[in-house]
Amino acid sequence: MLKNDRYIKAALSQAVDKTPVWMMRQAGRYLPEYRKIRGEAGSFMALCTNPELACEVTLQPLRRYDLDAAILFSDILTIPDAMGLGLRFETGEGPVFDRPIKTQADIEKLFVPDIFDKLGYVTDAVSTIRKGLNGDVPLIGFSGSPWTLATYMVEGGSTKNFGKVKGLMFTDPKAMHQLLEVLAKSVAAYLNAQIESGAQAVMLFDTWGGVLSTDDYKNFSLNYMCQIISELKREHDGEKIPVTLFTKGGANWLDAMADSGADCIGLDWTIDIDDARARIGHKVALQGNMDPCILYSTPEKVTEAVGDILKRFGNGNGHVFNLGHGIHPTIDPENVKAYVDAVHNLSEQYHK
Amino acid sequence: MLKNDRYIKAALSQAVDKTPVWMMRQAGRYLPEYRKIRGEAGSFMALCTNPELACEVTLQPLRRYDLDAAILFSDILTIPDAMGLGLRFETGEGPVFDRPIKTQADIEKLFVPDIFDKLGYVTDAVSTIRKGLNGDVPLIGFSGSPWTLATYMVEGGSTKNFGKVKGLMFTDPKAMHQLLEVLAKSVAAYLNAQIESGAQAVMLFDTWGGVLSTDDYKNFSLNYMCQIISELKREHDGEKIPVTLFTKGGANWLDAMADSGADCIGLDWTIDIDDARARIGHKVALQGNMDPCILYSTPEKVTEAVGDILKRFGNGNGHVFNLGHGIHPTIDPENVKAYVDAVHNLSEQYHK
Repeated sequence: MLKNDRYIKAALSQAVDKTPVWMMRQAGRYLPEYRKIRGEAGSFMALCTNPELACEVTLQPLRRYDLDAAILFSDILTIPDAMGLGLRFETGEGPVFDRPIKTQADIEKLFVPDIFDKLGYVTDAVSTIRKGLNGDVPLIGFSGSPWTLATYMVEGGSTKNFGKVKGLMFTDPKAMHQLLEVLAKSVAAYLNAQIESGAQAVMLFDTWGGVLSTDDYKNFSLNYMCQIISELKREHDGEKIPVTLFTKGGANWLDAMADSGADCIGLDWTIDIDDARARIGHKVALQGNMDPCILYSTPEKVTEAVGDILKRFGNGNGHVFNLGHGIHPTIDPENVKAYVDAVHNLSEQYHK
Repeated sequence: MLKNDRYIKAALSQAVDKTPVWMMRQAGRYLPEYRKIRGEAGSFMALCTNPELACEVTLQPLRRYDLDAAILFSDILTIPDAMGLGLRFETGEGPVFDRPIKTQADIEKLFVPDIFDKLGYVTDAVSTIRKGLNGDVPLIGFSGSPWTLATYMVEGGSTKNFGKVKGLMFTDPKAMHQLLEVLAKSVAAYLNAQIESGAQAVMLFDTWGGVLSTDDYKNFSLNYMCQIISELKREHDGEKIPVTLFTKGGANWLDAMADSGADCIGLDWTIDIDDARARIGHKVALQGNMDPCILYSTPEKVTEAVGDILKRFGNGNGHVFNLGHGIHPTIDPENVKAYVDAVHNLSEQYHK
């Protein structure tokens, strides 16, 4: 039994006493205690693949702040790595694959990895973190979306223009669909394995869906996320497992996202949350949507910005407070305290 | 008198026989003849600051393709350079300022540069290109928007997170407004100088407006573009000067952009042009909106994509065909031919 189930309830659009709050990348470089462990571990992947260390950094922000959820410490690119692409993190360059997807033959060779074999370090981390949390708050599991994973797999790493992956998509849509199909099956298996290991909610990160046109987004990104959502376990150990779908830059497509089967839709900060709510009504809960750069300012400004978003959402259920994207590494941890406390202090009035 | 005034007419929502077409960054690295001149010049800025060379590369794409407009070859960061920030282009790093804006005192020191003195190489390029064009097609002048220029000036170059410039905006909005005010005055003077020197249309590039929330976009970006537009000469030598406003990622704010005073609004590819037209009616013309990555595919696919956008816009005036962003350096020039020809071949039916 969870001592604090605000996050679960809000993501399922149920009544809560206060708006729950967490942050994408809340376990991360802005915390000196994270940088210490990360330095000792030697590399980012050494942290991800060690369940004890992954648990430790997952719990760090919860010791400092009154957060309503923990999120598994991991990377979105674990699946392509398990598929044999060879993930490395280069300083200043971000993720790099040693064996990116270059040909149709490369796609033919891919198969759904055995999650508990190849990604046992993730499911072990999930169960270790669950023990560490001791029922205080729920643990969110996650995966990158098929389209987002495909961008890195075809580009070989980060990209500005998405020329290779879109080149494949426009030139050989059949091959692209084949790649996305195996990724969708893998992501569904991966998230279900996280749920079986103890994740009490899951989130799909579609970091790069927003670089597509409307038709391409629906065909090559949303379509596969809907397929995944339909295959997810929505209950485990008698508890509902809320699913959140987040497409950065997806404001144009909120209506379609609300029909995806997800319980909750993540918003970045480029759309006002009152507009989003007006557009999709009570169909799903909304997560977001403060510009993470507001945390570069002062506690007073942060408190004011939190108050504005709460007021825009207004009375009623179905709001999970979050940033519109991951917290940046150079944020002052003091401003995070102002953010978390403001959400709790200012939201009670909207839940009476 | 222009031999081909399709671009001017379409941008002013007047009747044309075929939809005009051009490309952002049409003078650029995808052309071998550009790479040759760029190599000989030694640096990007050496090209920009030499009116003869700037003219030559401006004309290059017009020799290959049946384009309906030329655009001044220059950079969006010429104004901050003229303000004394010291612009350099580092290989693989993009633009870098030697003396970025760090303090309130740095902002206090800025003033509107004497355009014909400090940016005479631009106005000279404009008049040289006008001679070179010999009335074939119109010449478009341009500038970065104040917000977009400010991002580079405060960050010191390119950025992923916009932490410094947004930090300033959120912490000291007054200082930010002071910076944007001097930039708005400078941009207006700069564009008017281009018009006086022969630019027959102008465009404001708000490359980074899309990273803002709605309120911040309106206060810190659109607001200053409206101010500039109100100060522009809209007629020169008895001819109307159409003004185009382009905010990448601005689909959410089309209605506000349509009220900016601009004649034409540039669209990226993340919104369907039929939706955009339905939202803003006949208030302004629309420019766009093909995903530049479609040019990575085949002439057949390019032709199909052009046909789809023309069909979506449908019958009537007020469409300038363009990509939704600049052409990428690794595009095959053959596909550009398919793009330009398809616009002319397939658009006549919509102008009867």
